[in-house]
Amino acid sequence: MSLHTTKIAPSPMAFVPFVSVDHMMQLVHRIGVRPMLRGLAEYIEEDFKRWALFDKVPRVASHSQAGVIELMPTSDGEVYGFKYVNGHPANTKGGLQTVTAFGLLSNVATGYPALLSEMTLLTALRTAATSAMVARALAPETDTMAVIGNGAQSEFQSLAMAELCGIKKLRLYDIDRAASEKLARNLSETGLEVTICAAPEEAVEGAGILTTCTADKQYATILTDNMVGAGVHVNAIGGDCPGKTELHPDILERGDVFVEYTPQTRIEGEIQQKADDFPVTEMWEVLAGARPGRTSARQITIFDGVGFAVEDFSALRYVRDQLEGTGLGLPLDMLADPDDPRDLFGMLMRAKA
Amino acid sequence: MSLHTTKIAPSPMAFVPFVSVDHMMQLVHRIGVRPMLRGLAEYIEEDFKRWALFDKVPRVASHSQAGVIELMPTSDGEVYGFKYVNGHPANTKGGLQTVTAFGLLSNVATGYPALLSEMTLLTALRTAATSAMVARALAPETDTMAVIGNGAQSEFQSLAMAELCGIKKLRLYDIDRAASEKLARNLSETGLEVTICAAPEEAVEGAGILTTCTADKQYATILTDNMVGAGVHVNAIGGDCPGKTELHPDILERGDVFVEYTPQTRIEGEIQQKADDFPVTEMWEVLAGARPGRTSARQITIFDGVGFAVEDFSALRYVRDQLEGTGLGLPLDMLADPDDPRDLFGMLMRAKA
Repeated sequence: MSLHTTKIAPSPMAFVPFVSVDHMMQLVHRIGVRPMLRGLAEYIEEDFKRWALFDKVPRVASHSQAGVIELMPTSDGEVYGFKYVNGHPANTKGGLQTVTAFGLLSNVATGYPALLSEMTLLTALRTAATSAMVARALAPETDTMAVIGNGAQSEFQSLAMAELCGIKKLRLYDIDRAASEKLARNLSETGLEVTICAAPEEAVEGAGILTTCTADKQYATILTDNMVGAGVHVNAIGGDCPGKTELHPDILERGDVFVEYTPQTRIEGEIQQKADDFPVTEMWEVLAGARPGRTSARQITIFDGVGFAVEDFSALRYVRDQLEGTGLGLPLDMLADPDDPRDLFGMLMRAKA
Repeated sequence: MSLHTTKIAPSPMAFVPFVSVDHMMQLVHRIGVRPMLRGLAEYIEEDFKRWALFDKVPRVASHSQAGVIELMPTSDGEVYGFKYVNGHPANTKGGLQTVTAFGLLSNVATGYPALLSEMTLLTALRTAATSAMVARALAPETDTMAVIGNGAQSEFQSLAMAELCGIKKLRLYDIDRAASEKLARNLSETGLEVTICAAPEEAVEGAGILTTCTADKQYATILTDNMVGAGVHVNAIGGDCPGKTELHPDILERGDVFVEYTPQTRIEGEIQQKADDFPVTEMWEVLAGARPGRTSARQITIFDGVGFAVEDFSALRYVRDQLEGTGLGLPLDMLADPDDPRDLFGMLMRAKA
């Protein structure tokens, strides 16, 4: 360690690979959307199976009248990750996204960041991969899914369910028909058979999986009790924050509810409509074989998905592992790296020359 | 809002200005180290004076055997900020920094990030600016400061105290004389009179401000009771995490202790050696005129500084305001920005072409 060095160029440790939106899109196309959804589901399932290893803390939320900004950290003891995500329902009026996100992985042993990535796209992919991973474990044999709510998440849900669960037919419903037409158009070259329906009751006909992914922030009843027949799997992912639900509470009584992380889902999910001791099963228990998933052909299974930090962690791990050799990822000069750690000031002064 | 657009280039809202380490160093030299320390102190004081506006939450810490990774969020209702910072004492053995940091500002109204910045250098600057802002309010009239612990923070402390408090003479002590020599060399062209001392008792002679900024993570006694004379100001910034202190507890009984945010300082600061009801004054109260600072010439004032999220927020605000027109700040393509917020998938597919 020399106090007299004149080196200025930072060491490779000072650079953090950054996956921009453009690079994330290139990565998706290089891998393919469906293979990437499958890969993400594998990483998420792997992490769910080692659930006990993870630091699980509630999101750190900063609420305002306009929305919420959240930090979602977790760690498996070797790698630390967090996601920054906002939720601002009125943003779309100004042409902005309701939700934007980015995330970071770092090494627990040194605290040094290892990856910075856009996560708006990645969150859409991991949310769909999680839904399909859950449906693979819980849903009945079926080739038909109803998709109620045809917004930003709907294409990803459709392709993930096609890839992991054998869905071939989609029955779409949205209060705005233009959204369904957008979804149909976006999936027109995928080989999936798409039907736009005039009512949600029509959309659920013959469907073994019912996906609800609507955007309104309110207590809504997207599925009424009579729309949910015996034996179906309900994939309810739009009830994902306090004050926002999609299912009539009676449906939760008729089916068995599966969640990611109970304390968070009681605040944010469909079960916020129920008492604090309403029985649920955590998905990691099913995937690890500790508790049963679907136990009969007539059982209604309900995934009350709200999104959890471990899924973001898995998604960032996947991206990190796929990045190598692609030339994607811009090295960001993010960490000050003086030759002598005690001489930060000297590094600053040498940069003047 | 069109569902048929083919625009691919992201809008300006999709880009977040990023201040790299290199750009931060350029910004410092463009402004000048001392003017920047003064500017930072002004922003920090401004934010301390509107203390009640801020969300104040404890740091969100992820502890491991090797160290800690923390997220430090806050918000004033209009702007949200957070800092990622690690602390890994063994890092220097491998040539890495003990502490690295970066931070983000975003708009509360939309949740959209507005600035991403390196914060290893910026934290060193804001820590020194905070110390000098506090000393300006509490210290006696003096031109001499003792600096005990001559590591990465020491030059910044010296220059901030020179700029804001009229310090002209520095009396240095470190258990490793090479560190004092580095500090003396780094300040050789600043006009400050520097004396390297053989013992801490010698360093404090004639000094009106005693700064302790040592790095060892242990309960250490850098200042013993007999070294602290009547009327001095103690600027104790090295006792900044659980298990790490610098002052003999008796000193805390003889002086009046001033802190940033009491709940955090009770865990991390010098007063972790004291009972939970040990009396302290928060600095915002002094700066806002709600409680007295120094009340007599013989009073010993002690700043038990641990660093608080509001200071990082102020520092990021300062950088954001100084950036305009400099050409510094790399626009990062960090936010997915489809023309139609519901058509994230369409944006992804159009990028394939």
